[in-house]
Amino acid sequence: MPKNLFPLDSTKSFKDQDIVGHNRWHPDIPAAVTVNPGDTFRIDCREWFDGDIKNDDSAQDILEAPVSKVHALSGPFHIKGAKPGDLLIVDILDVGPIPQEDEGPLAGQGWGYTGIFAKNNGGSFLVDQFPDAYKAVWDFNGQTATSRHVPGVSFTGLIHPGLMGTAPSHELLKKWNDREAALIATDPNRLPPLALPPEPKDAVLGTLTGDDFDRVAAEGARTAPPRENGGNQDIKNLSKGTRVFYPVYVDGAHFSVGDLHFSQGDGEITFCGGIEMSGFIDVHVDVIPGGMDKYNVKENAIFMPGNVEPRYSEWISFSGTSVTLDGEQRYLDSQLAYQRACLHAIDYLTTFGWTPEQVFLLLGAAPIEGRFSGVVDIPNSCATVYIPTAIFDIDVRPGAGDVPKIDPGIGAPRAANA
Amino acid sequence: MPKNLFPLDSTKSFKDQDIVGHNRWHPDIPAAVTVNPGDTFRIDCREWFDGDIKNDDSAQDILEAPVSKVHALSGPFHIKGAKPGDLLIVDILDVGPIPQEDEGPLAGQGWGYTGIFAKNNGGSFLVDQFPDAYKAVWDFNGQTATSRHVPGVSFTGLIHPGLMGTAPSHELLKKWNDREAALIATDPNRLPPLALPPEPKDAVLGTLTGDDFDRVAAEGARTAPPRENGGNQDIKNLSKGTRVFYPVYVDGAHFSVGDLHFSQGDGEITFCGGIEMSGFIDVHVDVIPGGMDKYNVKENAIFMPGNVEPRYSEWISFSGTSVTLDGEQRYLDSQLAYQRACLHAIDYLTTFGWTPEQVFLLLGAAPIEGRFSGVVDIPNSCATVYIPTAIFDIDVRPGAGDVPKIDPGIGAPRAANA
Amino acid sequence: MPKNLFPLDSTKSFKDQDIVGHNRWHPDIPAAVTVNPGDTFRIDCREWFDGDIKNDDSAQDILEAPVSKVHALSGPFHIKGAKPGDLLIVDILDVGPIPQEDEGPLAGQGWGYTGIFAKNNGGSFLVDQFPDAYKAVWDFNGQTATSRHVPGVSFTGLIHPGLMGTAPSHELLKKWNDREAALIATDPNRLPPLALPPEPKDAVLGTLTGDDFDRVAAEGARTAPPRENGGNQDIKNLSKGTRVFYPVYVDGAHFSVGDLHFSQGDGEITFCGGIEMSGFIDVHVDVIPGGMDKYNVKENAIFMPGNVEPRYSEWISFSGTSVTLDGEQRYLDSQLAYQRACLHAIDYLTTFGWTPEQVFLLLGAAPIEGRFSGVVDIPNSCATVYIPTAIFDIDVRPGAGDVPKIDPGIGAPRAANA
Amino acid sequence: MPKNLFPLDSTKSFKDQDIVGHNRWHPDIPAAVTVNPGDTFRIDCREWFDGDIKNDDSAQDILEAPVSKVHALSGPFHIKGAKPGDLLIVDILDVGPIPQEDEGPLAGQGWGYTGIFAKNNGGSFLVDQFPDAYKAVWDFNGQTATSRHVPGVSFTGLIHPGLMGTAPSHELLKKWNDREAALIATDPNRLPPLALPPEPKDAVLGTLTGDDFDRVAAEGARTAPPRENGGNQDIKNLSKGTRVFYPVYVDGAHFSVGDLHFSQGDGEITFCGGIEMSGFIDVHVDVIPGGMDKYNVKENAIFMPGNVEPRYSEWISFSGTSVTLDGEQRYLDSQLAYQRACLHAIDYLTTFGWTPEQVFLLLGAAPIEGRFSGVVDIPNSCATVYIPTAIFDIDVRPGAGDVPKIDPGIGAPRAANA
Repeated sequence: MPKNLFPLDSTKSFKDQDIVGHNRWHPDIPAAVTVNPGDTFRIDCREWFDGDIKNDDSAQDILEAPVSKVHALSGPFHIKGAKPGDLLIVDILDVGPIPQEDEGPLAGQGWGYTGIFAKNNGGSFLVDQFPDAYKAVWDFNGQTATSRHVPGVSFTGLIHPGLMGTAPSHELLKKWNDREAALIATDPNRLPPLALPPEPKDAVLGTLTGDDFDRVAAEGARTAPPRENGGNQDIKNLSKGTRVFYPVYVDGAHFSVGDLHFSQGDGEITFCGGIEMSGFIDVHVDVIPGGMDKYNVKENAIFMPGNVEPRYSEWISFSGTSVTLDGEQRYLDSQLAYQRACLHAIDYLTTFGWTPEQVFLLLGAAPIEGRFSGVVDIPNSCATVYIPTAIFDIDVRPGAGDVPKIDPGIGAPRAANA
Repeated sequence: MPKNLFPLDSTKSFKDQDIVGHNRWHPDIPAAVTVNPGDTFRIDCREWFDGDIKNDDSAQDILEAPVSKVHALSGPFHIKGAKPGDLLIVDILDVGPIPQEDEGPLAGQGWGYTGIFAKNNGGSFLVDQFPDAYKAVWDFNGQTATSRHVPGVSFTGLIHPGLMGTAPSHELLKKWNDREAALIATDPNRLPPLALPPEPKDAVLGTLTGDDFDRVAAEGARTAPPRENGGNQDIKNLSKGTRVFYPVYVDGAHFSVGDLHFSQGDGEITFCGGIEMSGFIDVHVDVIPGGMDKYNVKENAIFMPGNVEPRYSEWISFSGTSVTLDGEQRYLDSQLAYQRACLHAIDYLTTFGWTPEQVFLLLGAAPIEGRFSGVVDIPNSCATVYIPTAIFDIDVRPGAGDVPKIDPGIGAPRAANA
Repeated sequence: MPKNLFPLDSTKSFKDQDIVGHNRWHPDIPAAVTVNPGDTFRIDCREWFDGDIKNDDSAQDILEAPVSKVHALSGPFHIKGAKPGDLLIVDILDVGPIPQEDEGPLAGQGWGYTGIFAKNNGGSFLVDQFPDAYKAVWDFNGQTATSRHVPGVSFTGLIHPGLMGTAPSHELLKKWNDREAALIATDPNRLPPLALPPEPKDAVLGTLTGDDFDRVAAEGARTAPPRENGGNQDIKNLSKGTRVFYPVYVDGAHFSVGDLHFSQGDGEITFCGGIEMSGFIDVHVDVIPGGMDKYNVKENAIFMPGNVEPRYSEWISFSGTSVTLDGEQRYLDSQLAYQRACLHAIDYLTTFGWTPEQVFLLLGAAPIEGRFSGVVDIPNSCATVYIPTAIFDIDVRPGAGDVPKIDPGIGAPRAANA
Repeated sequence: MPKNLFPLDSTKSFKDQDIVGHNRWHPDIPAAVTVNPGDTFRIDCREWFDGDIKNDDSAQDILEAPVSKVHALSGPFHIKGAKPGDLLIVDILDVGPIPQEDEGPLAGQGWGYTGIFAKNNGGSFLVDQFPDAYKAVWDFNGQTATSRHVPGVSFTGLIHPGLMGTAPSHELLKKWNDREAALIATDPNRLPPLALPPEPKDAVLGTLTGDDFDRVAAEGARTAPPRENGGNQDIKNLSKGTRVFYPVYVDGAHFSVGDLHFSQGDGEITFCGGIEMSGFIDVHVDVIPGGMDKYNVKENAIFMPGNVEPRYSEWISFSGTSVTLDGEQRYLDSQLAYQRACLHAIDYLTTFGWTPEQVFLLLGAAPIEGRFSGVVDIPNSCATVYIPTAIFDIDVRPGAGDVPKIDPGIGAPRAANA
C-alpha cells in the first residue's frame, strides 16, 4: 500500500478531518498536500454526501439529499513544478471501498447506494417518468454487488472515481460562472434547474477562513458538471490501470478526486446512479511539460482505460431515436435518443417481474454500455444501450417459451413530497 | 452458401435488376420475395448510391451525391404468417463485400469509400468545421482496411448492414410524415435541412407502376433516419452472429436490408461515414408470435450483438461536454458533447501529421466507440470517444518524447461549391 | 474474392482435379502454382480424407478410414525468390467452408464431421477408454455449429487450417525419416503405432510420374505429425487475421495447406477431432530475407493470432495430474495430465445426460482451451481444460439445485471391429 | 475488508505467529480456524520460503533455497458440517500483496521474486539449458510489475494463489506416499529428484507437538505437487472472481491456502516461476453436500475463472514438437513439446538484446499462455506459447526493418555451485 497522504476517519464528518478537503472549484483553495512528479500515494475519499445516505429501507434521505453539500473532494494536491500549459498524468493504480471496514453506517463500509433523485431535488435522466425519489442499497461481496432492493441480479464492479480534475484558473472559473449564469437566466425557475450557481451554504474549502472563505464560497463553481478541468465526468471506464491526462491551469495543477463508484452504467442515469461509496484510490502522478500545446489538448481529460475491466460476452441491447414519448420529432438529439433507449430497456425488463424503478436503478448501477450509434441520419439520432445478460439470475433473452418471472421482493424504497 | 434469393448483377444499375428493390418506406411496396419462418437465405445488397461514387482521387462525386437516390434496399421480404404485433427475428449469419469480385468500379468490389458530405448536400456531424466535401477510398485486404487517402492506419472491419427494418403500416407511415413535416416547418429553408420529406424524384419502388407508383412515391418515407421499424440505425455492432428483433407492423413483416458497411465508427459521423460498399448478407428469419406485447417492445429494434467483434485492448480516449466552440453553455446536450469529444480527437491526432479531414474520415470509418458517459450532471453532458491505438502504424500515446510524425501523403480529396 | 489459384471441383476426387495436390512431404514434388512475394490469392482445400466420410448415422467410415490417403494438401506454392534461410510470411485473410455449395455429399458443403478413431486405426487421445470408432456430423448455420449426434450444444466456429507448412529439404526429410524409423523400431508392432513410415500406397504427388513418382512415394514423409516445417500443427488459433512465419528450407519455399477445420478444441483430442471440412483459404504471402538467422528461428512456425476469435466469458474448467487411471505416479507428464483433465470433464458432463462419447466428440470439436498450468511441481504436471458454458443449452455450472438433464437423442454412431 | 481469521505478522517467522500454519499435507494436522458454510473471511499468506529470499542483486539465496521449508500454508480451515463426499466451494473475492506494507524485507511488501532453480536444488523446466540459479526481483506499482533485472518489460498481474486444497484422508495420503515412493525407487539418486518423500526436517504442523508431531512429520506429504485434493496446481487463472470446487476427504474439509503469486506464466516454468509474494486472500466458502457423487468429481479441483483477467489482444506465439534438442523423436510428449516451444521463444527474444535467462525469468512470471495444440498427431505433440506483445517496451514483432535492441542492464543475478 502506498503512503496515505489524505487519510479520512470514517467516524468523523468530512469537515472534521485532520486534513479537510473541499466541495467547490476555485483556484484560491489552498493545497492540502504537496507531492512531486513521479510520486505514488494513497488518497482516502468520502462518499459525495458525506454519510447522509443510510443503509436502510427508506428513500427519505434521497428525497432530502442536500445538494449544496456535494461533492466531498479529497485535495487539492499540489504537484511541484507543474505549470499552466502542462498535462498532468494520473495513473489509477488501485481504487476500492474502505479497506479496513467491512460494515458500518458509512457507504463504502461493505455497501453502497444508488438513488433516483426526485424532480424537486435535481431529478434524473428520466425525471418525467420517475418524479419521485427511490433508493437501492448494494452489498459488496468481493468485487460483486447485489441488492435486497433489486433481487435477481449481481454484477462485477468496475470501480472508478466519478470525479477527478485540476483547479481552474481565475479566468477559467469566471468563464464557467458567466456561461452557466447565462443559461440559468433563460429559465431561472425551472424545476429541476438548468444549472447550479455558486452557493456559499455548506461550502467546504479546506483551510480557508474568514474573508477568503466568504469570497471563495461566493465564487466557487459547483462540482456537479464536468468541465474543461475534467471534474465530474462520471466516465465508468476510469478504473484500475487507467492513465488520465488533465490540462493544468494553475501552478501545481491542484488535483482533486472524489465521488467513488463501486460500479456505474454509462450515463449514470439515475443522477445518483453509480453505486456511491467512500473508499481509497492509489495514484501515481507525473507531468508532461508543455503538453497542452504539444498534443493540442486545450481542455477536457484524455485517457487510456485500464485492461482489467470485467469481461462480459453477451448483451441484450435496446435502441432509441430522437422522437419524444408524445410523438414529437426532434432534430438529431442523442440525449433524447438515449432516454428512449433506456425507457425501452425498462419496458422490456419489467415483463420479467421487476418494477420500472428497480430496472431504472439497475441501469444506473450496473456496467451497461451506452453508445452513440447514429448521429447524422436526419432527423433521428440513434442511441443504443447494452446490458450484459450474465448479470441476471434468470434468462432474459427473448424466445419462444414462457417469460420467466422474478420475485421483485420488497422493491425499491420510494419517497415523495406531500 | 445459402440460396441467394435476391441476386444483384454488378454490371447493372439497381433499377435494372431481375428483382428490383426499393429506396422508400411504404406498406404498399409489393414483396419482392416470399420466405417461411425458419428459412436461411442470402441477399445481395447494392451500395447506397448505386455506384455513383468512384474509386478515384476526386471528391466531386461526394459533393454532388444525389441524396434522392438513397438507400438502395434489397426487399421487401415477405415472411409467411408474420402478423402485426409479432417480433421478427433476424439472425445475421454472415455479411461481407461482393464475394466473387475482387476488383471493379462498384464499391464492394475489393474497395469501399467514406465521404464527408458538404454543407449544401446534407452536411456531416461537424458541418461547421468541415463545410466542404471530402472522400477516402479504402482497400480491403481480407478483413483489413487501408486507404491511400489516410495513410498510416489499418483496422479490422466490423462488417454490418447500416440499415435493416420492417415495413411501416399506413398508420405508422402517416405518423412519420406528419411529425417530420412539422419539424421541417419550423425552419423550412435550413441548410442542411432538418429532415427530408417524401421525394418522388429517383424513387425506386420494386414492381410498382402507374398510379400506384406515383402515389407511393409521393407518400413514401425517406430512408435516411432510423425509426420505429429499425431502419437506418447505423449500429456498427450488428455484425456477424447478431440476432435482431424487429416489430412487425404489416402482414408478412416485409423486411428490407441495405447500406452495408465494411466498418464504421460509432455515430457514422461523416454522414457517409462507414466504409460504404455493395455485398451480401446471409440471414435466418423467424417469428415470435405476439412478441411485441409479450416483451413490451412497441418500437425500435432490440438486438444481441455477435461474439466475433474485433478484439482491441488499448484505446486513446477523448471527452467532451455540452459547451459550444463559441463558449455557450447548453443544457445536457449529449449530441454536442460527442461533437466536442470528436473535435478533441481531431485536434489531438493532427499533431502527428494527419490533416483534420483525414482524422475526421478515420473516425467515421474505424471501429471507434462513442459512449454516453455522463448525462445528468447539469448542465453538462459528458461524452467520450475511444480509438484503438493498434490501428495506427505509429505510437499515438502521449508521452515524454518527441511526437512521431506521419506523412499524410496525397491527403483526402476535397471538393467545394464555387 | 482474391483470384483462385488452386480451384477444386467438388464433384471430382482430389486426384482428378485440373491441378493435383499432394499428400506426402518431399522436396521433389513439383510446384503446382508459382506466385510472387506480396501476392494475395485464394486456395481451395479438400477435406483430409477426400470425401470418404459421409453425412450419415454410421461410424463405419470412420472405422475404416484409410489413413494412407491423408492429408489432401493444396500446393506446393512456389514463392519466387524465397531462399533457404528466409522466413515465409503467410497472412490468413479469410478461411471458410466451400462458399458456393450449401449442401451435398462432401464435407464442407454445409456440414462437417468429427470422428473418434478406433484403436486399430490410429486411435485417439483417450484410446484406452474409447477403443471403438464414433462419429458426429455437424451442421453449419452461418458461423455456428450444431449436431444431431450431440444435441444440446452449439458454438461459434474458430475456422482454421489444421495443416500449413513449407517443403523440407532433402537433408531435413532424411532427418525426419531416420528419427521416426528409430522410434518405430522400439516397438514396431504397437497398436496404435508409434509413428507412420513412408507409404507408397495412396500417395498423391502432384504432377510426378514414373520413376520419380515411385522414388518420392517411397521416401515422402507422412503428413500426420507437425514438424520443423510447420505441418499438421492443429493450432486452433490460426484463424482469420493470423500471420504465420515459416522457415524456408527449399528454393521457393513450396508452401502447402489443407485439413481445414470449422472448429477444434485444443489438442484435437479425438484424432479426427476438429470439425473436418473442405473449403477455401485466402492468403497473402511475403518473405523476410534471411529471417531465420535474423530472428533465430531455426524450426517450427511462429505466429500472431488474429483478433476476431469468438468471445466467451465464462468457463467450467477441469484439472488433471500425471497419475494414471490405475494410480501409477508418472514424472511430470503433461500429456497424461491433459488426458486426466479431459477425462474429468467427460465424467462431469455425463451427469447431465450426455454419453461419454458425445462429450469426447464435443471436446474435440468445440473451442475449448487446454493449458499447461504447472509443469515443474515434481512429480505431477497439472493440466487444465476450459469449456465455455455458453455452448450448452442448459446450465452446466455446479450448484445446489437439481442437475438438469439433456436428452442425448440418437447418440453418436459407433462402429467396432468384429 | 472481511474479518481476518488468519493474521500474519510480517516481522515474525511463519512458525512464530499467533496462529501457526503448516507445510505438509496430513489429515491429523489440527484445524487452525473453524468457520461455517457461507462465511466470508480474510486469510494472510506467507511467501512460500518464509522470507528467505531477499530483495537484492544476488542469486545465492535461490541457489540455497531450503526446499524442506515449503510451502508455508495458512490453515487448515475447518468448515463445519462438511463431510467426505461433499464439494467445497471456495470463491476468491480478492487477493493481493500485503495491504498495509509497501516496502520492507519480506516479499509481498511492494515487491516479489522469480527464481530459476539450480539443477542441484530441484531444477527447472529447462534444467539442462539453465543448470545454475538466477533471480529477478519485481516491483509492484499498482497492478503492474517491472524488474530491474529484466528491463524493458512491464505487465499487469493476474494475482492468484498457487496452492489451495483440502486435507487428504489417511487412505488418500497413503496412496500418495506409496505411489511417489515407487516412482522415486526407479531412480533414487536422480538429480533433480523424481519426487520428494516425506521429510521431518523443517516440518511445520500447526499446534501439533511431541509424538504426534513426529509421526505426522514422518508421514506428511510434501506440498510441491498438485494432487487429488487440489494442492500446488499453479493455475494462473485462479484469480479474483474465481469459484473453485474441491473434493472433501475429511470431516470439515480442512482447507489450506498459500503460495501467492503476483503473476505467473502458464507452467510456472522456472520452478519458482510465478512472482512469489506474501499477501492476503479474501474467500467465501460453502458446501455442496454429496457433490462428489452428484457431479462425478472424484478428484482434482474444478473451477470457473473470474472475469477480470487482464485483457491483451496481440500475441507473438511459438510452437514446439516432441523432438529433443539432440534430434531424438519422442512419442506424443507434450511436456517436451512445451519445453521446445519455450526454448523457441527464448531463442527469438534474445535477438532483441535480452539474455536467455532474462527471457526465461520473464516467461515464468508474465501472463503468457501455454496451450496443448495437437496431442494426437503421431509421433509429435504440438505445444504453443503465447506472449502478449504489449508487455514489451519495444516492438518485438518480426518485420522487414532492423531488429530493435534493448539494453539488458545489470542482467539477472546468477549463482552456481563451486
